[in-house]
Amino acid sequence: MAKSHFEYVKHFEILDECLKNCWIVVRVDGKNFHKFSKQHKFAKPNDDNALTLMNESAKGVMGLFHDIIIAYGQSDEFSFVFRKQTKTYNRRASKLSSTVVSQFSSCYVYHWTKYFPSQKLLYPPSFDSRVVLYPSNQNMRDYLSWRQADCHINNLYNTCFWYLVHDGKTPTEAELELRGTTSADKNELLFSKFGTNYNDLPQLYRKGSVILRKKVTRSSMGKDYHIIHRLRFIVFRGIFLLASNCDSFRSVKRERNSMRGARMPITSSV
Amino acid sequence: MAKSHFEYVKHFEILDECLKNCWIVVRVDGKNFHKFSKQHKFAKPNDDNALTLMNESAKGVMGLFHDIIIAYGQSDEFSFVFRKQTKTYNRRASKLSSTVVSQFSSCYVYHWTKYFPSQKLLYPPSFDSRVVLYPSNQNMRDYLSWRQADCHINNLYNTCFWYLVHDGKTPTEAELELRGTTSADKNELLFSKFGTNYNDLPQLYRKGSVILRKKVTRSSMGKDYHIIHRLRFIVFRGIFLLASNCDSFRSVKRERNSMRGARMPITSSV
Amino acid sequence: MAKSHFEYVKHFEILDECLKNCWIVVRVDGKNFHKFSKQHKFAKPNDDNALTLMNESAKGVMGLFHDIIIAYGQSDEFSFVFRKQTKTYNRRASKLSSTVVSQFSSCYVYHWTKYFPSQKLLYPPSFDSRVVLYPSNQNMRDYLSWRQADCHINNLYNTCFWYLVHDGKTPTEAELELRGTTSADKNELLFSKFGTNYNDLPQLYRKGSVILRKKVTRSSMGKDYHIIHRLRFIVFRGIFLLASNCDSFRSVKRERNSMRGARMPITSSV
Amino acid sequence: MAKSHFEYVKHFEILDECLKNCWIVVRVDGKNFHKFSKQHKFAKPNDDNALTLMNESAKGVMGLFHDIIIAYGQSDEFSFVFRKQTKTYNRRASKLSSTVVSQFSSCYVYHWTKYFPSQKLLYPPSFDSRVVLYPSNQNMRDYLSWRQADCHINNLYNTCFWYLVHDGKTPTEAELELRGTTSADKNELLFSKFGTNYNDLPQLYRKGSVILRKKVTRSSMGKDYHIIHRLRFIVFRGIFLLASNCDSFRSVKRERNSMRGARMPITSSV
Repeated sequence: MAKSHFEYVKHFEILDECLKNCWIVVRVDGKNFHKFSKQHKFAKPNDDNALTLMNESAKGVMGLFHDIIIAYGQSDEFSFVFRKQTKTYNRRASKLSSTVVSQFSSCYVYHWTKYFPSQKLLYPPSFDSRVVLYPSNQNMRDYLSWRQADCHINNLYNTCFWYLVHDGKTPTEAELELRGTTSADKNELLFSKFGTNYNDLPQLYRKGSVILRKKVTRSSMGKDYHIIHRLRFIVFRGIFLLASNCDSFRSVKRERNSMRGARMPITSSV
Repeated sequence: MAKSHFEYVKHFEILDECLKNCWIVVRVDGKNFHKFSKQHKFAKPNDDNALTLMNESAKGVMGLFHDIIIAYGQSDEFSFVFRKQTKTYNRRASKLSSTVVSQFSSCYVYHWTKYFPSQKLLYPPSFDSRVVLYPSNQNMRDYLSWRQADCHINNLYNTCFWYLVHDGKTPTEAELELRGTTSADKNELLFSKFGTNYNDLPQLYRKGSVILRKKVTRSSMGKDYHIIHRLRFIVFRGIFLLASNCDSFRSVKRERNSMRGARMPITSSV
Repeated sequence: MAKSHFEYVKHFEILDECLKNCWIVVRVDGKNFHKFSKQHKFAKPNDDNALTLMNESAKGVMGLFHDIIIAYGQSDEFSFVFRKQTKTYNRRASKLSSTVVSQFSSCYVYHWTKYFPSQKLLYPPSFDSRVVLYPSNQNMRDYLSWRQADCHINNLYNTCFWYLVHDGKTPTEAELELRGTTSADKNELLFSKFGTNYNDLPQLYRKGSVILRKKVTRSSMGKDYHIIHRLRFIVFRGIFLLASNCDSFRSVKRERNSMRGARMPITSSV
Repeated sequence: MAKSHFEYVKHFEILDECLKNCWIVVRVDGKNFHKFSKQHKFAKPNDDNALTLMNESAKGVMGLFHDIIIAYGQSDEFSFVFRKQTKTYNRRASKLSSTVVSQFSSCYVYHWTKYFPSQKLLYPPSFDSRVVLYPSNQNMRDYLSWRQADCHINNLYNTCFWYLVHDGKTPTEAELELRGTTSADKNELLFSKFGTNYNDLPQLYRKGSVILRKKVTRSSMGKDYHIIHRLRFIVFRGIFLLASNCDSFRSVKRERNSMRGARMPITSSV
């Protein structure tokens, strides 16, 4: 068997090692989820089950890669942050990116019936993924802030849009009514027209989900991560922790105080 | 909302367009499938259901990307070949690679119960993927030949190994017995000891699976691909076709004859 | 000496191997040569000495890299084509590109006084360089045709422009007169106004310079390249030839005939 | 003229933008300078004129790129550090790398006769160049320390080697005598055998050359850089200064004190 005769082709593969000493972000995005969410009758503007399924899938990814120190998700996207010094897969971008998105997709289908017991999954959904590198901690924080700002802007718009539509407007009418409005206008619209104070809506909708690892003293790691929805990010390099039950800014602050001395806190308010 | 203040971070993304006028191969590989196959009690050396599930997942990928003109699979891997001129996702390597592996993983879990009705899927499996470029048709053919040669070599070895194990040897004993043997030795072993002519084993095991699109005259594309297991590859650029039921070399030859005049046939015998 | 403590930084270097089985082109371009040519009083539209100095520098590069099989130059640029299978510097793009442009620059200054004995070189000029890969022979031919077409278009324009300026027009007036004219218009202008038949101008100006290696039987390689200005390119892979004295299409044709049987001729007319 | 027909080939060029917010280092290395230095009769172990010509060429490069904030040279190599935020050539690696090495080579030949009035330049020398990115200030400092440690180690060895050779040993004998010796051994050898205190040798030999820009209040930039040979590097982002005459550690310290408040000092002792 002339194996060696053909084997030369394997040297056409190009190595794609990520620059050392940079944060590695893998972001997963749903493909055609606008259509997918419609076909699967997701509640609008936010579907608790769909968001929780996304979080569940993200936890599946974090269970696979112990060098992911924080994950942030909103809508149909999730960002996974590998620590700067990770040697996972020798920092090969394609390996990191593909395994993350594969596990995420696999989990999404695997856990579907748990969150949608009465809605059949009509076809296998797919996601794309990409790798982005951030050299400094400030860049890394700004990336998370950027995604969270995006969450806020889209959710405020979608909340207004769907309240209007549920109130009887056509999508086109709702869109026209919102065109050119500021954030203040939208807050006012929700309050005056629907008696809703935007800030009272669930943090899950307004802030997205942050997943951090919880420092555990037990030798078994188990399900060592928790999901929080909140105003600020806290990350620690190396072994990090976190934040089991922080629904309010106050509890985050308390925890942060208890963590003084830890290196490289990343905090950012939006 | 100071969105623009953070948005600069999106320009850290590096474009990864594939060189034009090259064949683009995306190869998907199972992660830890040795363990996975054991935990899910796959028949050894080959499990028809597992292989068919791989093929089913590959068809799911081909249904998503009309510029994949051939896919080749064996064991826990599958290679997808995009035509040279594809503009899918502007030839961005990360988009192609991630969407292929996401859809493949998603399909694998989605179709699991169809092929393993009595074996629960214990956890979500994952795959990695990579992109490799081939400038010439000869390189492209040699790539497919390389993977098929790999299939042959591994399958001959595994067949011997598992026949010995099923016959009462321990894995270590079987390994020792096979150490240093040639292909001829292995064929002889199967024949003299187990009365098995290796060449009589199913092509699915010995040759792997090729998926090509079938030319259909109906306007609807539908399930326009078929799986074949065989000695030779036939590919046509542009609109191609194919090869519905070719279990033997003869039928392939017949079909090929009927396709004379088509441009750029890729043929290779292993 | 804690050398090892710092040495980790060398692993930040990213490898940049060129995809195998592709033509590798390194193109060198003059930096600010518009200004440079003015300061050094180059004859306009074409300065024989300046063009010959470019050719001399290109020969210096070809003397350094035996895997460059053809070079094409015009104006202040030169393209060097490495054969598809070259292993020079393990196909590292940065090494190939930097050494080519370094040698070119070095030669340009070194040979200056030979071509400009009465014009002092006022300051060290610089060039940039880039690497471009071409998978197919057709792409490679089209690249050379593209550069030669560029030469033709620019030279026809510049010839008209400078004839008008030498005739007393201001640059602005000349530019205005040429705005929107076709090639035919420009040819007509030269003929009717200046009695010049464009096609009678030197091939060096109209076609640029091609440098090929000459097959020599002597063991010493010596100055084994020649410069030609002509309508067609001829390249042969492996050992190639060349075309010592082909001022006319006819002689090229004759030589080509004598080379029948050689593999992979690249021919293209502009 | 079917220009558009060929022009498609220009899209085969791959962009190579450097990751943002990283230090960009371009290192230039002499090609075959062992042979070159012999042919041009450079004094051994160090030739003042050759080193000064290297420095002169580096100044030529710094005059071209105002975003180079420090350059470090030793032997036949020079490293140029672009500030993190540089937008020169849109951070394209190939443009930065090629223009730096081109200007360096051009300067080297241009200034040759000034430093070697009685030694003809026998042929045009060449250099290669590469780009390396450093995300953090610590990485950047460590890079410079690495090159300076390399300078020290090589120079100590070469000094011993050439003292032995000048003393009558053959190169092979000198090499054998030095095999396995520590730094302490080499210092002792120089002192006991040749009465030389290594630390009394010129800093230019032992430490290499650092080129920084000098802050000038005059509007004209002029020759706004100076060369120093010393123990520590001092760099300031933005407009920085520099260190005209610091032959001793003390003067560097004094200057640094006078610069308190400046951002991001990079200091490293070897």
